[in-house]
Amino acid sequence: MTEEQSTEPQPQSPCVALVGAGPGDPDLLTVKALRLIQEADVVVYDRLVSEEIMDLIPAGATRIFAGKAALHHHMKQDDINETLVNLAKSGRRVVRLKGGDPFIFGRGSEEAMYLAEHGICFQIVPGITASAGCTAYAGIPLTHRGLATGVRIVTGHVREGEELDLDWAGLADPNTTLVIYMGLTNVERITRELIANGLSPEIPSAAVQSGTTPRQRSVTAPLSDLAAVLDKEQFKAPSLLVIGRVVALADTLAWKIPQSACDIEAHG
Amino acid sequence: MTEEQSTEPQPQSPCVALVGAGPGDPDLLTVKALRLIQEADVVVYDRLVSEEIMDLIPAGATRIFAGKAALHHHMKQDDINETLVNLAKSGRRVVRLKGGDPFIFGRGSEEAMYLAEHGICFQIVPGITASAGCTAYAGIPLTHRGLATGVRIVTGHVREGEELDLDWAGLADPNTTLVIYMGLTNVERITRELIANGLSPEIPSAAVQSGTTPRQRSVTAPLSDLAAVLDKEQFKAPSLLVIGRVVALADTLAWKIPQSACDIEAHG
Repeated sequence: MTEEQSTEPQPQSPCVALVGAGPGDPDLLTVKALRLIQEADVVVYDRLVSEEIMDLIPAGATRIFAGKAALHHHMKQDDINETLVNLAKSGRRVVRLKGGDPFIFGRGSEEAMYLAEHGICFQIVPGITASAGCTAYAGIPLTHRGLATGVRIVTGHVREGEELDLDWAGLADPNTTLVIYMGLTNVERITRELIANGLSPEIPSAAVQSGTTPRQRSVTAPLSDLAAVLDKEQFKAPSLLVIGRVVALADTLAWKIPQSACDIEAHG
Repeated sequence: MTEEQSTEPQPQSPCVALVGAGPGDPDLLTVKALRLIQEADVVVYDRLVSEEIMDLIPAGATRIFAGKAALHHHMKQDDINETLVNLAKSGRRVVRLKGGDPFIFGRGSEEAMYLAEHGICFQIVPGITASAGCTAYAGIPLTHRGLATGVRIVTGHVREGEELDLDWAGLADPNTTLVIYMGLTNVERITRELIANGLSPEIPSAAVQSGTTPRQRSVTAPLSDLAAVLDKEQFKAPSLLVIGRVVALADTLAWKIPQSACDIEAHG
């Protein structure tokens, strides 16, 4: 009797998994993320989670759209926090699914703080962040000997009515690859400020839209032309901006060519 | 006859997958990385790939140790490059397995350039880089509203006999989380230079050794004490250094506690 009891499943503490969905390609989910998604009772998801990844959520699971996107939030952050606590207390397996990595932008740590303060068990499942995923699929290394000794990641997103306030002098460093999340709206100002602060107008730059998904598009241009090119090509969010000498390698390192042998092997 | 022929497998072009193994936990491999490893004929691997991930390589696959590690290289980079080309030409399924992400340090792009220049098809499989994985498991977000608006990633590794030459003034920015790969050997100099360039001696800092593996250890300390603490605690490579206000959240956000409900769920 005692032995039998001890093998029975223990009552599970309320627990929320804060899961990074990566940049879009479901093949770039981590093994752990995929398992948690497939076992979830409830998935609270953002707008930046790709449709291919949404298709992996079990048919019987509840889906709650938290809709965080640049400039317009479907749910307020306080409401998301409260929803996660209430769902966890209901005893269901809760996955909070966020585009990219939960701890790089996206306010995952605010949600984790709220859960911690309310005594809800949580775990963090890192995801491939856009700066690694989208660039890799576009053939742009973030570091390369002689071209970039480090990487700097910032967001170009500001709340409506606010002005983008970045350390332009510090960012205008030709030895560091600069990656800007959600920078499309402010690309004209970003490129102008970087050049005004000493970065060469000729330094290579790129934008990658819907990186790693079948809808991926990318362009490269000298920094001074980037805003005009993106306007002409009608780039839309989500787009990642990459500025630095490493972008010059993209022509040689582009591997994600539809119908190439690697592509068929990877996706066939 | 024609139809039968058309369904036969096409002769595969030589192809190398440059695969990021992530920081160590095999659960943090991407779905794509796991599949490629399990289908590999040959795996050329670095010293920083965890033993748990090495255990996933099929018993019949050839393993080639490329042994890149700080200060002593088992194979020269030219030899690694040449080995990858020769293996690909032999028609075998080749996985070049690198710790972390192939395009963030680790010289993955140099290998990709060599493959491209020799007409060998390749693909890049991004991995969770240490700055995302090790910090997440230690409860340290890389960005957080009011604490850090961006992230900067550099390496603290130099070749034997050379001096570490970083843009100390630019790195001493309290609004940016600074992550230093392979910085253990130079931690005394790193902390001294950052303080000399204006970063507060009191700013929180952390080190994470063998992050995300069962051997993970981490400490936090004010920046001015970090070198002494790591010396006293006998920290060893691979260790990640994290400097910035976000480190102060680690006490609240630490979730990877052995025997916690989440931990059992995640690894049981």
